[in-house]
Amino acid sequence: MAKYSLGIDYGTLSGRALLVDVSDGREIACRAYEYPHGVIDDTLAGNKLPMDTALQDPRDYIEVLKNTVPQVISDGGVDPSDIIGVGIDFTSCSPMPVYKDGTPLCCVPKWENDRNAYVKLWKHHAAQDKADRLNAVAAERGEKWLDTYGGKVSSEWMIPKLWQTLSEAPELYDDMDYFIEAGDWLVWRLCGHLTRNSTSAGYKTLWSKKDGYPSPEFFAALDPRLADCVSTKLAGPVMTMGQLAGTLTSEMAELTGLCAGTPVAVCNVDAHVTMPAFNITKAGQMQAIIGTSTCHMLIDSEYHMVKGICGTVEDGMLPGMFGYEAGQGCVGDHFAWFVNNCLPKSYADEAEKRGISPHVLLTEKAQALKPGESGLIALDWWNGNRSILVDSQLSGVIAGMTLQTKPEEIYRALIEATAFGTREIIENYRRSGVSVSSFTASGGIPNKNPMLTQIYADVLRLPVRVVKSTQGPALGSAIFGAVAAGSGRGGYDDIFSAGAAMGSTEGKTYYPDEKASKVYDMLYAEYHALHDRYGREDRLLKNLRQIARDAKGV
Amino acid sequence: MAKYSLGIDYGTLSGRALLVDVSDGREIACRAYEYPHGVIDDTLAGNKLPMDTALQDPRDYIEVLKNTVPQVISDGGVDPSDIIGVGIDFTSCSPMPVYKDGTPLCCVPKWENDRNAYVKLWKHHAAQDKADRLNAVAAERGEKWLDTYGGKVSSEWMIPKLWQTLSEAPELYDDMDYFIEAGDWLVWRLCGHLTRNSTSAGYKTLWSKKDGYPSPEFFAALDPRLADCVSTKLAGPVMTMGQLAGTLTSEMAELTGLCAGTPVAVCNVDAHVTMPAFNITKAGQMQAIIGTSTCHMLIDSEYHMVKGICGTVEDGMLPGMFGYEAGQGCVGDHFAWFVNNCLPKSYADEAEKRGISPHVLLTEKAQALKPGESGLIALDWWNGNRSILVDSQLSGVIAGMTLQTKPEEIYRALIEATAFGTREIIENYRRSGVSVSSFTASGGIPNKNPMLTQIYADVLRLPVRVVKSTQGPALGSAIFGAVAAGSGRGGYDDIFSAGAAMGSTEGKTYYPDEKASKVYDMLYAEYHALHDRYGREDRLLKNLRQIARDAKGV
Repeated sequence: MAKYSLGIDYGTLSGRALLVDVSDGREIACRAYEYPHGVIDDTLAGNKLPMDTALQDPRDYIEVLKNTVPQVISDGGVDPSDIIGVGIDFTSCSPMPVYKDGTPLCCVPKWENDRNAYVKLWKHHAAQDKADRLNAVAAERGEKWLDTYGGKVSSEWMIPKLWQTLSEAPELYDDMDYFIEAGDWLVWRLCGHLTRNSTSAGYKTLWSKKDGYPSPEFFAALDPRLADCVSTKLAGPVMTMGQLAGTLTSEMAELTGLCAGTPVAVCNVDAHVTMPAFNITKAGQMQAIIGTSTCHMLIDSEYHMVKGICGTVEDGMLPGMFGYEAGQGCVGDHFAWFVNNCLPKSYADEAEKRGISPHVLLTEKAQALKPGESGLIALDWWNGNRSILVDSQLSGVIAGMTLQTKPEEIYRALIEATAFGTREIIENYRRSGVSVSSFTASGGIPNKNPMLTQIYADVLRLPVRVVKSTQGPALGSAIFGAVAAGSGRGGYDDIFSAGAAMGSTEGKTYYPDEKASKVYDMLYAEYHALHDRYGREDRLLKNLRQIARDAKGV
Repeated sequence: MAKYSLGIDYGTLSGRALLVDVSDGREIACRAYEYPHGVIDDTLAGNKLPMDTALQDPRDYIEVLKNTVPQVISDGGVDPSDIIGVGIDFTSCSPMPVYKDGTPLCCVPKWENDRNAYVKLWKHHAAQDKADRLNAVAAERGEKWLDTYGGKVSSEWMIPKLWQTLSEAPELYDDMDYFIEAGDWLVWRLCGHLTRNSTSAGYKTLWSKKDGYPSPEFFAALDPRLADCVSTKLAGPVMTMGQLAGTLTSEMAELTGLCAGTPVAVCNVDAHVTMPAFNITKAGQMQAIIGTSTCHMLIDSEYHMVKGICGTVEDGMLPGMFGYEAGQGCVGDHFAWFVNNCLPKSYADEAEKRGISPHVLLTEKAQALKPGESGLIALDWWNGNRSILVDSQLSGVIAGMTLQTKPEEIYRALIEATAFGTREIIENYRRSGVSVSSFTASGGIPNKNPMLTQIYADVLRLPVRVVKSTQGPALGSAIFGAVAAGSGRGGYDDIFSAGAAMGSTEGKTYYPDEKASKVYDMLYAEYHALHDRYGREDRLLKNLRQIARDAKGV
């Protein structure tokens, strides 16, 4: 009798449930559901939200369960008792304040109009001042964990968001029992046990397998009221991917149509969860998930100190390995910005007439250009720089325009800039002693845009394997669900055998073209010089940001 | 009985004749005529023209006379015998090869298919290699006239264009008798006397009142075949603005409807001719003609060595004064590039629906922004940098983009960049000891765009007087026509009294806003740093240009 596993992937705008066959990972059914409240970044309860705020309503996540799980069971025509495990992955770091019983503070009348009661979505950037201060204090104190995060903690992470909550809403801070990742909260809802996943804890909450969280003295140095936060607001056991968090409660069984008692895996992060889904299990293998932004994951058997990456976490991607994470904050968003703000009418009309997307039209025109022909180069920092400069205050640069410059040349230069940004990350690893020997690209963009993928191969001088499945996160979650179930229930006892059986291998490999690579070597040298100039030495971009803030009075 | 003067202005795409009253400069009639062949920059006689080529057919200039002068006489209802003088201004440097009898080489079957037989329009940039070599040789030899031109001769000027002709078409070079500015050729056609105007000779052909042309030794060092070019191809008396070149021939009287014997003034350059038209007669007064590009003219009673400007010529703008010329190669062209290549469909549709130009719409939106608010800064080098870097190989830069950046913010940043470029030119004068105490803006753009003019006032920290008349060149030519006629015929004996009587004063003055100026001081400091970095120190933009050339194989 066939057994199935259910993976549920929570993204920025929607959640999706994927039902797969445990024997081979084959997709049985899939349903997605958009969050009714989407991203709350404009107003809340009629009040204008501050700049850089990005919130969510956790009730939307339950709606996803209600509106996808019963449907995939029914679509797949499977018996719920044959679904042996459930895995969840979530964006991270997306934390929220909750009470001991799991009720989010935003769900009680007392706090429902307070922005600090909601989920602070991963891309909530309003705690930058807290991150800056945290970095300064950690550096001053010589906190040794700081190196693990490339020397810089992002405003997107747990402690800046917790500290912002304390700072802006001290009564709310006192009132909450826990500050918890939304994904961990969901697993808790499903199985009744509070756990915290080691991936989020490691990459976003400064936890390590060896040393745990930073010391109370460090937190006290930030703010005396934070001194005990690890044992209070952040309490709860940190557990590893694939471990069993608990089994499905009757209440949730009723809501989802699954059987009570179904094993539920410890939560994972939407990017990291994909490694076994795409058979990435060896040192030197990098996976880039290329979407609105790009997340680069790399595994190595040893620890190396690498400056400017998002983090290095033991068991952070696969058990027994060190997982290195880096990222680019603006990739698909970059191209979307161009189409939304710079696409001339004649191009828009042509695309419409031909029934193709503007991206397809621009790519068609850009493909006719030779590498270097446009004379353009860009710094892909429209959304700051995540790795390896870790600076959200940086902004985009483009150079080389003439009166002959065409839109497709700019579009191609933006694509190339994201490839150079990836090369910058890879070269940084190599300088730090971490080898990068293979490159897997996943996500919608490399599948939809072969020109982009070829440019990446040429710029990186690496074969680029594109995996066809865009279900990586949900498939990864299903794989971890099968591991949580264990072989006794028809699943697997370790992630390597589960990945080998269930992982997706379909795809295509793009090989570098030597002639193009030679041109891109020259352009990359210019990119690298610009990167270091405006990222490290020259204050131009920071001054512009400051002038803009002063002008707007924010 | 009223007397009239006729000014004929030859621009890049058309010529226009303006008939004015000699007593007060009042416009009586005006007609424009587009050149039938326009700018020849794509193919000639079925052959693809090389990159950067821009030619014209001199027969078009005669067509202008035929199609405008009889019409303005008739429109104005004046007796031709009351038209006491004719003045002509022309783009410069726009030279061509002719025979002794004035026949252009392109008009004879032998050469009609040869691109070197045509007028090389001012914006013909295909002689850059010759300009580079000329600059190197002049610097090596310590030619002291080089300083007069800010240390650098442009590829747009006479000698690079003459040398290109020799180099590419030595037989044609041997066959021609003269290489002459199209404007001087027209004056010759009108009155039968070959003269060369001191403005073109001074600003474009390395001539000075004190020292004449460079030495035969210098020309021989460029190419032995050029050694005697001054006494052969460039022969002809250099005469000053307002001087009488001759009187109208019967043949031309028949073609134009004017009376034979009407005084014809020595030719002038389209920009320089406007100074008396706008009452600019004192040291420290700068006029900027802001159109597709900007020409900045400044007068001073003394000579100062100023690096990077286009030239300093005694009697070059007004007799008895030193005329300083500088320029920006890309102003209106810059905004047009944006509208043609970057205007999103929604904006284009809105402009169309409201029946306004995209420039008006963008300006309306840009006007709502505070100075500095966009966080953007640009280097306005889409068409290279004319002053003060004199480098056509430079290209545009824009920095500070985020995912929130809107089209109107970029549009405003491009406008601001041109204002910063003007400030750079003014600061350079001041560093060199030349004072700039007033600023007059003429041309279509400052009249059409009050936001731009206010930005210029704020950036320059100078009141900006905008003259309403867009007839500056034609009016200036008419004023010089009245001076050529002299008081005996009802005109004037000197340009100062002619300008005072006939010059146009109508317009509006914009005053700097201190708050905006303070923000622009900060942004200008960033612009200045970028200007020097990419103009003088860093090879980025040159490397990009070289990579592009290599990629295109040109």
